[in-house]
Amino acid sequence: MSKLVSTITGREFPFGRLEEFADNGEALEVAVPNIRGARPRAGASVWERFAEFLPFKAMNASASLGEGNTPLMDAGASLKAFTGIERLLLKNETQNPTWSFKDRGSLACIFMAREMGETLTATISTGNMGHSIAAYGARAGIRALVFVPEFAPREKLMAMTMHGATVIKVHAPDYALMKKTVLGLAGEFRLRIVSGNGPIRTEGYKLTAFEMHEQMRGEPPGYIAVPTSACGHIRGLFKGYRELLAAGLITRLPRMIVVQAANNSPIVTAIKRGLKQVVPFTNVHTVAEAITTGNPMGGDEIIAKASQHGWLAEDVTEDEILEAQRVFAQAGYFVEPATATSLQAVRKLRAAGRIAPGEPVVLMLTGAGLKDLDALKFQPCSIVESSLDAVRRDLETALGSRPG
Amino acid sequence: MSKLVSTITGREFPFGRLEEFADNGEALEVAVPNIRGARPRAGASVWERFAEFLPFKAMNASASLGEGNTPLMDAGASLKAFTGIERLLLKNETQNPTWSFKDRGSLACIFMAREMGETLTATISTGNMGHSIAAYGARAGIRALVFVPEFAPREKLMAMTMHGATVIKVHAPDYALMKKTVLGLAGEFRLRIVSGNGPIRTEGYKLTAFEMHEQMRGEPPGYIAVPTSACGHIRGLFKGYRELLAAGLITRLPRMIVVQAANNSPIVTAIKRGLKQVVPFTNVHTVAEAITTGNPMGGDEIIAKASQHGWLAEDVTEDEILEAQRVFAQAGYFVEPATATSLQAVRKLRAAGRIAPGEPVVLMLTGAGLKDLDALKFQPCSIVESSLDAVRRDLETALGSRPG
Repeated sequence: MSKLVSTITGREFPFGRLEEFADNGEALEVAVPNIRGARPRAGASVWERFAEFLPFKAMNASASLGEGNTPLMDAGASLKAFTGIERLLLKNETQNPTWSFKDRGSLACIFMAREMGETLTATISTGNMGHSIAAYGARAGIRALVFVPEFAPREKLMAMTMHGATVIKVHAPDYALMKKTVLGLAGEFRLRIVSGNGPIRTEGYKLTAFEMHEQMRGEPPGYIAVPTSACGHIRGLFKGYRELLAAGLITRLPRMIVVQAANNSPIVTAIKRGLKQVVPFTNVHTVAEAITTGNPMGGDEIIAKASQHGWLAEDVTEDEILEAQRVFAQAGYFVEPATATSLQAVRKLRAAGRIAPGEPVVLMLTGAGLKDLDALKFQPCSIVESSLDAVRRDLETALGSRPG
Repeated sequence: MSKLVSTITGREFPFGRLEEFADNGEALEVAVPNIRGARPRAGASVWERFAEFLPFKAMNASASLGEGNTPLMDAGASLKAFTGIERLLLKNETQNPTWSFKDRGSLACIFMAREMGETLTATISTGNMGHSIAAYGARAGIRALVFVPEFAPREKLMAMTMHGATVIKVHAPDYALMKKTVLGLAGEFRLRIVSGNGPIRTEGYKLTAFEMHEQMRGEPPGYIAVPTSACGHIRGLFKGYRELLAAGLITRLPRMIVVQAANNSPIVTAIKRGLKQVVPFTNVHTVAEAITTGNPMGGDEIIAKASQHGWLAEDVTEDEILEAQRVFAQAGYFVEPATATSLQAVRKLRAAGRIAPGEPVVLMLTGAGLKDLDALKFQPCSIVESSLDAVRRDLETALGSRPG
């Protein structure tokens, strides 16, 4: 029987617990029994193959939208030249059903809801997670309830409502205050409100580690760079590798790289300063909208893990983010600004000699560029304006040569 | 040695020919030699496994962005109930690198450019194809040149320019005239301008058929419904199955379903009226922006194939398209309006008894809902406006019950 365990003190809680954190804010995670003897088996999807590593009893393909099975690509010459990293790989999570990494966590949420007999799943989100939960709720016939802040862009709200989610926009002076108020209603209403860093979603994200384990034929990468906001993604990826180690399927862990925007770097700042606790950021403003959690719950655990396991941490300026988005696109990958942060982070860490040469470095492509079109207003858009009469001449100019 | 063959008269042309159609407008297709003995082999990607079925000599993973390997999903209870089709399947091409089916054709274009030693690839597009070609050109280090009409939305132009494509916007009274003018420059400038229905892109789309062949363990579906504009996608899918038949890997062909918006149904109208030629539509206006080719080159071939092979054809009104987009989303799939057409088409054909019960019907999910956000202005967006003080009461109302 699986149980929830505090990542800080080791205190135990029942698996079905509604609240995602202990009363004192300690992050919880699932302790899967018998992980030492767990082995992958044959199966069409990664959650079928790694079923022994998962805590859910109610796993069924009817909950799946076809998430995962995303490519792990050689990054290509231009990105290797930009970063100075020879073995640079891209794990493209934008090829998930709602075009972000969030879908893996949403699958886990639906498995959990079904196991607990819940008919509703709730979340607080500005965008990607709400969109994903709305889609998975629709697929599974489980009602989705998404609390959004007033600054959530209309496109993302449209996607949620198209999927049939109930969307409650809470006008409030501060997003953190809004989150706290809504989470305060969870117990009273017997409502499971999943967050980006809860123990359930984390079980979904660890599937990405299992998939990379298969794709790299059992070799863990040297480093995995993860744009970090609520912390669930980096936590889940590392938990996956920890469980592969516990099961005896690998002999060493990858080193994680915590990446944040300099304008909102509560974890990276703490790690760089050698502090043990999150350095809260308020009134956050960054073009990397998907990573704007200024005071992440459970962030202290990430800082502790960074110290214990020799993780790296780097922050990235606004100009660096926009540059990296262009560099990514000119290598074929149109990613959202939050994703672009990791490219600059590994470039800077490599230049500083913090990343050892020769080791594989994986960048997680967390979200599609189409998910954050607002950010494009900061990018140049150079178009040749032409006409039927002028197109011959304009083509000649563009090609820099005459026909023939 | 592969060659190009007219789909109408069987006239032969050299494989490297720049022009995609014969002088009299006949559509060309690749005749792959030795198709009868061709067999799939081991390989990581579908183009590696089906290399014997492809005409390209310069295939290399460095051209790939990780396209294909998309899920073929059971459509779920709600879409089956809506359409009345028991074995309804979804081939989700929105999980490609630029989130549309176009990426398969773009891979083929890059293979061709490399084989011919070309350093530039050009296309005319309002959106998805230009975006895809721009991304693949960036990946391969081949310059992309995209001619766009003046009504192309800025988001799509931004995606193209982010990828580093040269974008020439041609102001013209009519898109068809603009296309003709630009294509007229191809020979003079020795420029390969790929269209949506050229023989090269078609080779990419047939890979989807090979992938479905694997996913359905050798059973061809009864029907494949394809939103149809330039005609390349439906042509490529069918060509794939024809080649599987020629190779002796299947014993019957699927029946294709040509789907168009009623506001722009040049092929469907011709098929329904029993005509042999495209019925041109002008000044087309439909919410299904991705399928607005009003007078598709090579369309006559599709009409001939429909007659010869017993294909079905159906058109869909604007209201039906918008309804289908909502129904799709409420089953978990946020697709662009062009994709949504197919859901209504198969519903109507099933209701009319044209689709036999019990046979698998595949819908091609051609493009992501995020690719056409303009269309959402026609959709309702119901949001609960709340505040910190009111959220408890508003949650109670949304749940229809008091806490506890």
